[in-house]
Amino acid sequence: MENEIKSKMLEFLSGNEYICHLGIEIIELKYGYSKARMPYKKSILNPYGSVHGGALYSFADIVAGTAAAMNGCFAATVNGSLNYLLPAVKTEYVYCEASCIKDGKSLSVFNVKLTDDKGLLLDEGSFTFYNTGKKVIG
Amino acid sequence: MENEIKSKMLEFLSGNEYICHLGIEIIELKYGYSKARMPYKKSILNPYGSVHGGALYSFADIVAGTAAAMNGCFAATVNGSLNYLLPAVKTEYVYCEASCIKDGKSLSVFNVKLTDDKGLLLDEGSFTFYNTGKKVIG
Amino acid sequence: MENEIKSKMLEFLSGNEYICHLGIEIIELKYGYSKARMPYKKSILNPYGSVHGGALYSFADIVAGTAAAMNGCFAATVNGSLNYLLPAVKTEYVYCEASCIKDGKSLSVFNVKLTDDKGLLLDEGSFTFYNTGKKVIG
Amino acid sequence: MENEIKSKMLEFLSGNEYICHLGIEIIELKYGYSKARMPYKKSILNPYGSVHGGALYSFADIVAGTAAAMNGCFAATVNGSLNYLLPAVKTEYVYCEASCIKDGKSLSVFNVKLTDDKGLLLDEGSFTFYNTGKKVIG
Repeated sequence: MENEIKSKMLEFLSGNEYICHLGIEIIELKYGYSKARMPYKKSILNPYGSVHGGALYSFADIVAGTAAAMNGCFAATVNGSLNYLLPAVKTEYVYCEASCIKDGKSLSVFNVKLTDDKGLLLDEGSFTFYNTGKKVIG
Repeated sequence: MENEIKSKMLEFLSGNEYICHLGIEIIELKYGYSKARMPYKKSILNPYGSVHGGALYSFADIVAGTAAAMNGCFAATVNGSLNYLLPAVKTEYVYCEASCIKDGKSLSVFNVKLTDDKGLLLDEGSFTFYNTGKKVIG
Repeated sequence: MENEIKSKMLEFLSGNEYICHLGIEIIELKYGYSKARMPYKKSILNPYGSVHGGALYSFADIVAGTAAAMNGCFAATVNGSLNYLLPAVKTEYVYCEASCIKDGKSLSVFNVKLTDDKGLLLDEGSFTFYNTGKKVIG
Repeated sequence: MENEIKSKMLEFLSGNEYICHLGIEIIELKYGYSKARMPYKKSILNPYGSVHGGALYSFADIVAGTAAAMNGCFAATVNGSLNYLLPAVKTEYVYCEASCIKDGKSLSVFNVKLTDDKGLLLDEGSFTFYNTGKKVIG
C-alpha cells in the first residue's frame, strides 16, 4: 500500500507545473519522512544570486506535504515558518529533509532541514498540516 | 530620494526571473508599506487548483522585502511565517499588503495580509528582515 | 448563551494559579475577540527590567485561547509565535487584543497585538487553536 | 572564560523571580548549547492539568537565551515560535535542550526540543536572538 501511495504522489508531483518549474526531485519518500533535492538554477534565484527564500520555502512545503500524504490522505498546509541561516549559493543542489514530529489524526507537524552539497544547514523550519480526508488512492 | 529608491526597486523586481514568473505587480510602494497583486494562473497552482502555498509565501516575502528596502538598503529575510486561512481560488488576483510593525536600525518586521478580489483575508503572517547595509542606490 | 460561556470562562481563569500569578484581567470578551491587561510588576520581569518575553507570550496565549473558547468548546494551542518589537517598560499595564482571523470547525487562528499605556505596539503574533470538542458549559 | 560566563549566567538566573517561580534548573550550559529541567507542579499548570503552553514557551525562551549569552553578550529575543505536539502530563520534569543552528555576529538562532521523563518529544520550536553587545562579564 505504501508503494502505491508513493507512486501516486510522485505522479501527482510530476504533473504539477509549479513543482516542475522549481525542479524538485524526490530522493526518498516513506511514512513520516521525505528527502528531495532542488537544483541551483537561474530561474529561482533572488536578485543577489542565491536561491530565493520563497523558492526554498516552497521546496520545504512540498517535501513536507508529500511526506504528510503518505498516511494515505492529502494534507493541506495550516501554517509554515522558515529560518534562513545561510544563503543557498555555491552548491549544485539544495537538499531538504522533512521529518514528522507529530502524527495526529487530524494534524501532523513536520520539521524541515535544508542543506547544501557539503551538508551545511541552510534553513530550518516547521510546517503544520491538516488531514483533508481526501484519499490519495481511490 | 524615495522616488529614486522606488524606481530602482521596481527595476530590480522586473529584472528578476523568479519574481516575473510569479507575475507580481507592485501597486503601491513607499517607506514602510507596499501593496501588490499576483494573478491566479495555472503555473502557480497546487494540484488541488488553488494558488500554491509556496507561491503565496514567495509573493508575501517579495512584497515585504521590497517595502523593507525603501529605507535605502537591501533587506535579507531572517525568517518568515504564514498562516493559511482560506484557499486562493475563484479570484482573478491575490493582493498582498505589507506593513512595517518594527523599523529598527538593523532589524525590521513586516506584517503581511493576502486578500482576494472580494477583500476576503486568505493568509496572514510576518517577516523579519536584516538590513544588509548594501545601498539600493550608488 | 454567550454570557454564560463568558461567565464560565472568567471563572475558569480566576481559578487558575498560573494565570493569577501573571495578574491577567479580562477587559472584554466576546465571540472571536478578547482584550485584557497584565500589570508591569517585579515578579514577571526579566533580568533587564522589562516584562519577560515568556510572560508576554503566556499573556497572549491565554487571551487568544479564552477568545477561541467563546464558540463554546475549549481550545488547545497547536502553535504560537510572537515578534518582540519594543521592550515592555515604563508602562503600568501591558494590553493584549486577540482577534479571530480564521474561524474553522476544527481550527481557529488568532492575531494578537500587545500594547503599552500609550498604545505603542510592543509585540505582535499569532496562535492556532484546535477545537477540543469539550464543552465549556455542561 | 566560558566557566566565568557560565557562573555569571547561573547567578543571573537564580536572582530572577520569574525564572525561579517556574522552577527552572540548568543541567548543562556551554557555548551554543544548554539543557535544563522544569518540574511538573501545580503553579504552572493550565486548567486542564498539563503544563501551561506559556510556561513551556517561557522555559524554552530562557534556556535558549541563556545558551545564546554564552558568547559573552546578553541576547534579546527577536521572535519565538513553538509547536505543541503532546501535552506535558504524567512526568516529574519537563526537559529542554536548546541547540544553536545559526551563530552570527548580530543574530543567533536556536532550535528547542522539550521532552518528558521518558524522552517523548512534547514541543519543538525556534528562537531568534539579537546580540545586545552588553557584556555578561565586566
